[in-house]
Amino acid sequence: MRKIIAVSGSNAGDSNLTGEILTIAEETGYLIAKKGGILVCGGLGGIMEASAKGAKRGKGITVGILPWNKKAANQYIDIPIATGIGFYRNNIIVNCADCVIGICGRWGTLNEIAMSIGIGKPTIIIDKSGGVSDLFSKKETLKTFKKKPIIAKTPEEAVNYAFSLKS
Amino acid sequence: MRKIIAVSGSNAGDSNLTGEILTIAEETGYLIAKKGGILVCGGLGGIMEASAKGAKRGKGITVGILPWNKKAANQYIDIPIATGIGFYRNNIIVNCADCVIGICGRWGTLNEIAMSIGIGKPTIIIDKSGGVSDLFSKKETLKTFKKKPIIAKTPEEAVNYAFSLKS
Amino acid sequence: MRKIIAVSGSNAGDSNLTGEILTIAEETGYLIAKKGGILVCGGLGGIMEASAKGAKRGKGITVGILPWNKKAANQYIDIPIATGIGFYRNNIIVNCADCVIGICGRWGTLNEIAMSIGIGKPTIIIDKSGGVSDLFSKKETLKTFKKKPIIAKTPEEAVNYAFSLKS
Amino acid sequence: MRKIIAVSGSNAGDSNLTGEILTIAEETGYLIAKKGGILVCGGLGGIMEASAKGAKRGKGITVGILPWNKKAANQYIDIPIATGIGFYRNNIIVNCADCVIGICGRWGTLNEIAMSIGIGKPTIIIDKSGGVSDLFSKKETLKTFKKKPIIAKTPEEAVNYAFSLKS
Repeated sequence: MRKIIAVSGSNAGDSNLTGEILTIAEETGYLIAKKGGILVCGGLGGIMEASAKGAKRGKGITVGILPWNKKAANQYIDIPIATGIGFYRNNIIVNCADCVIGICGRWGTLNEIAMSIGIGKPTIIIDKSGGVSDLFSKKETLKTFKKKPIIAKTPEEAVNYAFSLKS
Repeated sequence: MRKIIAVSGSNAGDSNLTGEILTIAEETGYLIAKKGGILVCGGLGGIMEASAKGAKRGKGITVGILPWNKKAANQYIDIPIATGIGFYRNNIIVNCADCVIGICGRWGTLNEIAMSIGIGKPTIIIDKSGGVSDLFSKKETLKTFKKKPIIAKTPEEAVNYAFSLKS
Repeated sequence: MRKIIAVSGSNAGDSNLTGEILTIAEETGYLIAKKGGILVCGGLGGIMEASAKGAKRGKGITVGILPWNKKAANQYIDIPIATGIGFYRNNIIVNCADCVIGICGRWGTLNEIAMSIGIGKPTIIIDKSGGVSDLFSKKETLKTFKKKPIIAKTPEEAVNYAFSLKS
Repeated sequence: MRKIIAVSGSNAGDSNLTGEILTIAEETGYLIAKKGGILVCGGLGGIMEASAKGAKRGKGITVGILPWNKKAANQYIDIPIATGIGFYRNNIIVNCADCVIGICGRWGTLNEIAMSIGIGKPTIIIDKSGGVSDLFSKKETLKTFKKKPIIAKTPEEAVNYAFSLKS
């Protein structure tokens, strides 16, 4: 059974989304695809779009779990799953994945990351990718919690770790 | 954007599931795939498995929206979406589809069909496919409701109708 | 722990909702309250409002599980739970109840009744209360299913049965 | 219409839950009740139990939105809403409230707080109440986000703020 990897991160409009950070997301999606994984994300813009773009460049398959309408899916989504439940759809992204990778992000990403760690799903944060991911790659922040995410330095490290897990 | 068609019907174990009815489901999945649609179903056995088998024969892509664990997915599911919410996942099957086709079925199918018609999603029932579908293809039953499903005589008629709809 | 009884039935606007049928709903709500139960319903009009009105007359407590906004709650709802998930909220009504009583109803009620029976929740339909309830009190219809609802002749019979169940 | 205030915080077992912090939760629940509000929480132990205990001391009404079974509700819950959807129930707690107050907390609380701020619900964190709340009362942390929670120094300040909002 193919690995399902969720990428969680900022929608378009986040001022943290520099070209460098979008490249991290695209590279992550590309590597997931190259290794035979299915990319799942929230289907919208920003990190979601960049990771899906990368996965398509890697000839992979992309699933977008959308808040409301499938017309909101970015152009790199093969399978748009329009849930009609808004923010609740974050739960589905996390639940259906074998592993969740966080890149940059604001409150929505934090919602997903917190749930993912809370339910014991392997959760990886890419270091220095801005926003929430920066926050959670600080030792100071992580001291707050017993269960912790994995901090990966690069997309390669994140994706290699994800594929090293038994599902 | 590719059409997404949900097939709703009995899980394995329903005594109504004769070879003839499973053939109807397989043919429906096959035709959805041949016309370029994405098949969505509940990912388990019976009608879900037969329709996914047909879609794979037609070189299509299959999505299984599963109640709990992706390991329960039948062998013809390309994209298993494990929701972790049991019966609530029926809502996602219906919401993400452009059109829902009901074949045979018991209470779970009835739950999906009722929601689908209730929210105004185009809903087709294949006549003489047993169980709930037989019930809803009776004029006597349909008199109870103002909003009604489409009754199709064959998989061809059902799938042609589904693809004739604007999405 | 107090019994939680869900009443499922048509929203305002259903042409089946005669004064007689609304009286059945009100009486059901009244009896649930008199026996110390908590009434749960969808919080809107029609059968939901009539049963909540009855429960308040019986000095009981009423919970309305609403599709979107709490402002849509009828005037007899003590605890409006605004879910923000539309039709999916039907699942919560059924899940949180010890027993579900169906009165009249259209597709939404049928969605709830089907789920309730499907997940093995004790489910009672009040005979001759119109719509879906009429459909399911027919032997012909019930022949379709192995798991069946209880058919009660009156609100008294329904509520007595509900309170006779171990929770 | 009565205000609905959600209290979000650690379940029993969190080592941050000192007597002092439980007193903050109890006082918060008490004040919500005294002002005529309905307390909503996750229905389990720790902060959820302490706030419900306080609300009952204040002669208020308490709702517990439970992950699975109503038998898990703490003894101060009047209305247990058993959802059968685990962690997804966090969404309902947040959605049904007019305002969310965070006290202490781990990943589950963070999931709720992040969603609450993400969807634009007024969100208050009680300063120096440990765990996640400590994290979010730091300026350093808050710099990460544009939308921010309100930081209240005491239960009084939190509850007064909650009741000052138009609903």
